[in-house]
Amino acid sequence: MTELLIRRDAGGVAHLTMNAPDKLNALSDAMLAALKAEFERLAEDRATKVVVLAGAGKVFCAGHDLKEMQAGRAAPDQGRAYFADLFARCAAVMQMIPALPQPVIAEVHGIATAAGCQMVASCDMAVAAEGTRFGVNGVNIGLFCSTPMVALTRNVPRKVAFEMLTTGEFIDANRAREMGLVNRVVPHEALAAETRRLADTVAAKLTAAVKIGKRAFYDQIGLDLAAAYDHAAGVMVQNMLWRDTAEGVAAFIDKRKPDWA
Amino acid sequence: MTELLIRRDAGGVAHLTMNAPDKLNALSDAMLAALKAEFERLAEDRATKVVVLAGAGKVFCAGHDLKEMQAGRAAPDQGRAYFADLFARCAAVMQMIPALPQPVIAEVHGIATAAGCQMVASCDMAVAAEGTRFGVNGVNIGLFCSTPMVALTRNVPRKVAFEMLTTGEFIDANRAREMGLVNRVVPHEALAAETRRLADTVAAKLTAAVKIGKRAFYDQIGLDLAAAYDHAAGVMVQNMLWRDTAEGVAAFIDKRKPDWA
Amino acid sequence: MTELLIRRDAGGVAHLTMNAPDKLNALSDAMLAALKAEFERLAEDRATKVVVLAGAGKVFCAGHDLKEMQAGRAAPDQGRAYFADLFARCAAVMQMIPALPQPVIAEVHGIATAAGCQMVASCDMAVAAEGTRFGVNGVNIGLFCSTPMVALTRNVPRKVAFEMLTTGEFIDANRAREMGLVNRVVPHEALAAETRRLADTVAAKLTAAVKIGKRAFYDQIGLDLAAAYDHAAGVMVQNMLWRDTAEGVAAFIDKRKPDWA
Repeated sequence: MTELLIRRDAGGVAHLTMNAPDKLNALSDAMLAALKAEFERLAEDRATKVVVLAGAGKVFCAGHDLKEMQAGRAAPDQGRAYFADLFARCAAVMQMIPALPQPVIAEVHGIATAAGCQMVASCDMAVAAEGTRFGVNGVNIGLFCSTPMVALTRNVPRKVAFEMLTTGEFIDANRAREMGLVNRVVPHEALAAETRRLADTVAAKLTAAVKIGKRAFYDQIGLDLAAAYDHAAGVMVQNMLWRDTAEGVAAFIDKRKPDWA
Repeated sequence: MTELLIRRDAGGVAHLTMNAPDKLNALSDAMLAALKAEFERLAEDRATKVVVLAGAGKVFCAGHDLKEMQAGRAAPDQGRAYFADLFARCAAVMQMIPALPQPVIAEVHGIATAAGCQMVASCDMAVAAEGTRFGVNGVNIGLFCSTPMVALTRNVPRKVAFEMLTTGEFIDANRAREMGLVNRVVPHEALAAETRRLADTVAAKLTAAVKIGKRAFYDQIGLDLAAAYDHAAGVMVQNMLWRDTAEGVAAFIDKRKPDWA
Repeated sequence: MTELLIRRDAGGVAHLTMNAPDKLNALSDAMLAALKAEFERLAEDRATKVVVLAGAGKVFCAGHDLKEMQAGRAAPDQGRAYFADLFARCAAVMQMIPALPQPVIAEVHGIATAAGCQMVASCDMAVAAEGTRFGVNGVNIGLFCSTPMVALTRNVPRKVAFEMLTTGEFIDANRAREMGLVNRVVPHEALAAETRRLADTVAAKLTAAVKIGKRAFYDQIGLDLAAAYDHAAGVMVQNMLWRDTAEGVAAFIDKRKPDWA
């Protein structure tokens, strides 16, 4: 039996590869379950500092498994209960990404469409290979990408999102970077190394600081300015009082490397 | 008597042209009333799939009708009641655009200033001719563009909006695209065709899917992440259960065109 | 004794220079107090129309005064009360910038890091010298830039902010402009003149209109669309009823300069 989600760990970085290349890494029930289980493990995993999410084969991820979805229609309720459960499960997995203590980087190539594009948008950062195409093109088959839209509209300007959603057309990696959907664009052959470099850079920081910062990032983002500052100031105080931060600041003043054992 | 707002229908696309070129298509009381009446018709118009909004003559729209506004000062209250009513009517017309069931595309050329720029920002998408200039320059005459600001700040980064509002300076079409105010920029002679191409692309989709998607777009955009997902997941389930969506997905799997009669 | 914050006034523009170049204009207790006092004066200063904020020496501002912060640890509570007070004072100063009646322009060169980058993000507009580097790199010393994040995430797309915060890496002035953190980028030798030109442009407008507009800008930005329009429409009515605005509109119609004495 092939593993649906391959995990390789190195240097505090957990590299996850969705591994259903013949299905373009579709977010089938089994794939969603595998992602959920892995994210649950990572939420408790104190040794992992950064997570990378990639796809095996020709594309990153082409969204839901349409054949499996169609099969759901055989139920007496024509699939209503199954679809409700499916979209709830999928939305829960997407929301686990910002909720994870570790930064999550999408390593994207080929195509990221529908829920696959949603996954890129849900990640904290993304590195894309040149030529990668991003789309939320469910509208082409009569299924508007309403849940992918939630993540997409929190990444790119609204007119860009609206066009992608209603035309079903792709944007390429460079436009995605200009609009805020990905952080870096590199030649395909440099994708793994560049993503690794980004992951290693973050993994080398004080883990607790990255963790408290990531949580504060999403906690403050929807608050009004005063409430956001109240929250963030409390986080700064907490952060300042750690032994490792005292050491980090002292080392900087002394122009030496911090002793973070 | 000339029609203030010309409507031409073709292939499910309603093409509206503001037609007061000698007044730079100013949003006079009469023009606002014409737009309101047409938008009310479109809200009930099941045959129209996409709306395009353009301007006759040299510019798209130069904002309010200043002479008409000044005449309002003759009232015993120096215009207070008239201005309150005018800005409420104008804001209502602007808010009808995202509330319409059909996507609305601005076809912009020449100049879009003040409430004219607000109208571009209020549209779901915008195509601009090269050289088009966008401004919210009421500040130049002592009237800060406070209501245009509402739409503009929901399209472009805040520092960009602030500069436009307080300097009264224009940005050109390319900067407008970079910043998210327009989707596409084409040579002036290609404007009508490119806008038509975009409209036709959207009009060819399953109308009900575009409609449910557009509504969900604006319903979810201001919600927190969990609430937005709850809402959007409900929309996805509803969408999945349509006969035409079942057919669309089946056709995709079978590699044939959907039978959407 | 050297002045920590130099103020020069000309033509309605108050030009403030943080003047602790040997400390890279660190936001020490004294610097924060000087900024607070000056902002309090400006809040009541009806002759000043625009504020520019610059830094003396090689950089704009490199954030907090780390040596002073470390000294705070000597207290019996290891600095907890001091840090809480410090971050509250700093956040209050940052929030005074959008609350000031005058537009505030950051004139940025060299480096703007941590709370220095937060200050740029907190200003209404920013002009940067080519080559200026922007960072929120507290994470490098174990102190995540949680309060700078509040301002930064309200200026740039979230993935850009996340990368800056967790990698500690700089972005340059051109990327900052593309992403919305600064308005204009000019050669270093043109920085003062270009900032002055922007300030003068705004200072030449009707002061009351700029003031009511700036307040409305921040009042409406977090509201839902209908509430934002209600608020902004009320502001427009108020603005229209001023004598100087009546004159401004009349002058525009008559193609003459307004008589704003």
